[in-house]
Amino acid sequence: MSTITPPENPEADPRVKAVFDDIRATRGTDYVNNLWRYLAYDPALLEQTWQDIKAIMATPSSLPPMVKEMLYMAVSVANSCSYCVHSHTAAARAHGMTDEQYSEFIRIVTLAARTNHLANALQLPVDEVFDKG
Amino acid sequence: MSTITPPENPEADPRVKAVFDDIRATRGTDYVNNLWRYLAYDPALLEQTWQDIKAIMATPSSLPPMVKEMLYMAVSVANSCSYCVHSHTAAARAHGMTDEQYSEFIRIVTLAARTNHLANALQLPVDEVFDKG
Amino acid sequence: MSTITPPENPEADPRVKAVFDDIRATRGTDYVNNLWRYLAYDPALLEQTWQDIKAIMATPSSLPPMVKEMLYMAVSVANSCSYCVHSHTAAARAHGMTDEQYSEFIRIVTLAARTNHLANALQLPVDEVFDKG
Amino acid sequence: MSTITPPENPEADPRVKAVFDDIRATRGTDYVNNLWRYLAYDPALLEQTWQDIKAIMATPSSLPPMVKEMLYMAVSVANSCSYCVHSHTAAARAHGMTDEQYSEFIRIVTLAARTNHLANALQLPVDEVFDKG
Amino acid sequence: MSTITPPENPEADPRVKAVFDDIRATRGTDYVNNLWRYLAYDPALLEQTWQDIKAIMATPSSLPPMVKEMLYMAVSVANSCSYCVHSHTAAARAHGMTDEQYSEFIRIVTLAARTNHLANALQLPVDEVFDKG
Amino acid sequence: MSTITPPENPEADPRVKAVFDDIRATRGTDYVNNLWRYLAYDPALLEQTWQDIKAIMATPSSLPPMVKEMLYMAVSVANSCSYCVHSHTAAARAHGMTDEQYSEFIRIVTLAARTNHLANALQLPVDEVFDKG
Repeated sequence: MSTITPPENPEADPRVKAVFDDIRATRGTDYVNNLWRYLAYDPALLEQTWQDIKAIMATPSSLPPMVKEMLYMAVSVANSCSYCVHSHTAAARAHGMTDEQYSEFIRIVTLAARTNHLANALQLPVDEVFDKG
Repeated sequence: MSTITPPENPEADPRVKAVFDDIRATRGTDYVNNLWRYLAYDPALLEQTWQDIKAIMATPSSLPPMVKEMLYMAVSVANSCSYCVHSHTAAARAHGMTDEQYSEFIRIVTLAARTNHLANALQLPVDEVFDKG
Repeated sequence: MSTITPPENPEADPRVKAVFDDIRATRGTDYVNNLWRYLAYDPALLEQTWQDIKAIMATPSSLPPMVKEMLYMAVSVANSCSYCVHSHTAAARAHGMTDEQYSEFIRIVTLAARTNHLANALQLPVDEVFDKG
Repeated sequence: MSTITPPENPEADPRVKAVFDDIRATRGTDYVNNLWRYLAYDPALLEQTWQDIKAIMATPSSLPPMVKEMLYMAVSVANSCSYCVHSHTAAARAHGMTDEQYSEFIRIVTLAARTNHLANALQLPVDEVFDKG
Repeated sequence: MSTITPPENPEADPRVKAVFDDIRATRGTDYVNNLWRYLAYDPALLEQTWQDIKAIMATPSSLPPMVKEMLYMAVSVANSCSYCVHSHTAAARAHGMTDEQYSEFIRIVTLAARTNHLANALQLPVDEVFDKG
Repeated sequence: MSTITPPENPEADPRVKAVFDDIRATRGTDYVNNLWRYLAYDPALLEQTWQDIKAIMATPSSLPPMVKEMLYMAVSVANSCSYCVHSHTAAARAHGMTDEQYSEFIRIVTLAARTNHLANALQLPVDEVFDKG
């Protein structure tokens, strides 16, 4: 079920094909997941979304790819985005996340949720020492 | 401003003092932040919260301390917990998060928020390949 | 799957029938969607919910009906309400939302989510000039 | 700081005065809190909001007033509404919430947040036995 | 669909069996719901989660069990956790929640959501009288 | 209070100055608000954020500028982003939002929040007719 109808042959559009080819090359897989197949309904939005994700998630940087995917997962869990939780948990595993690390992720994320609600309930004043500006 | 009144001399209570001492020893600092000073109103809740945080965040494990703090930050940003964003950003820095890594954190978290809302708007069906059970 | 059992013949109850008739007349359609069919389990809640929605969404006002539905969609996406995203996207289309406007909606909502998380991460102080009281 | 300017003498408007009088009579106090003083900028919205709150929160029903305020608090904590957390915690106390009950509230709400994030991370399938319709 | 594969014979692990036995004894039912069957993939996490829930939700305290489950439901609704809404609505009913009380719950939770968004839109300043510390 | 220290003379950096000049020219005002003054700590992030906002919010398109700002406000209210609520309410007013339209915005957003929580509580099944793909 979706609010949009994905094109039947998305790669008939050369702009879509170019993005799909780049996704396959960047990820080293033939599989193109639903996010992209549905986004193909708007090639400009598809291009921009892929550019953003590629620049941030698929470019070597100061954080390891697995950590980046775990941060993505953490936000997706808190925002209750079912699709994103599924796709980024799979991506983190593809980047080497072990079962032990996943279990630790669960512990941290659920602990954070617990103290987020604690601090929001108590309405704690922020310590002066945390202020940077 | 808070919904509770923190005790004036929290360490007069030996249970509170024991937790504060452990916080100082574990973190190697004299400073005990407001979360603990306010939680002192309920020593049992203080003890349990500190036990949870110590066991998960301050115990060597399969993820580096800085990464753990960044995951904590990610959830706190998404849950809009001002106190937690401040305290865990400070903690991540104390564990070595560089300015570059913080900027990258910002990029990942805001990208995740963007695609979370994208997937929630389009109501994408989850790919079968992501299903583990 | 639902937490309640909708009545099998909801319109056997005259209060429910009156609301359903008004929904059909107001919307110019025979179709009554699940929200109302399930809410029929509590006729008073059904009546009040329909009254609220009719007064705000189906009464001529200072904003066009399509814009009103798009605002409804925006909140529903951010609150991760799958049912509401589906029903109000359909309603916005029924009020004339074009594919181009829908694509633009997606861009704005996802951009807002991105900067919401940016401002919550940086914990920006609000500018004095924005203060009205 | 607010996005609106509250009227300086709100009770100069007889519609506002009538609502404020009813608030004072219903609550048995002279104090009218900021929500109402600011809402006075739009008397119709003020009236409707007060009517809703009075009908649901200040009318004898199947749940005790204190429990109703605690449910209100729980939603407000999860939605990160600082104003509502403060005002409804005060209201629950005015309706008899003890320190012990407040501490228990904190434990339940934070536990719920923890398992909410757990279930959202694991993307658990809902048990058939929970389905009512 | 889940991000993890639950063990086929979870009770082959004595730690899992001990928890499942305690769940059945504590709840007086043979049915063990999916949360536990999936959590069995990590016995330590299973044990800790059950301990937390048992200590807070299944131990006599200053709030009745039904009220505790309703608070849990309220947080789960606001956090958009489908699994938790289903399981805790069932639990509240098992603890005696009547249809009338459930309808009242719906009214309170949806009213709270309404005014949460109202206060967040107006950015109301918190009254001094609500400040406890 | 912020998690970062904004540069004292941000426009000493030519990349920052170029963005600030473009903001002033695009908006026809001398005032550059805190979001940009703080983002100046990372000129690349500043540039990208401004480019995104300019392309989507400040470029003529199929929706009027005021409507675009109101959609931005709606998401920001639901995500509890205090800074964004303030800045985009001011922006909507600058684009002509009247008091009447703002009051209507409040009514729609709070109604949506109410039925979002209603649908999430009842866990309504989505109607087949809403499915586009």
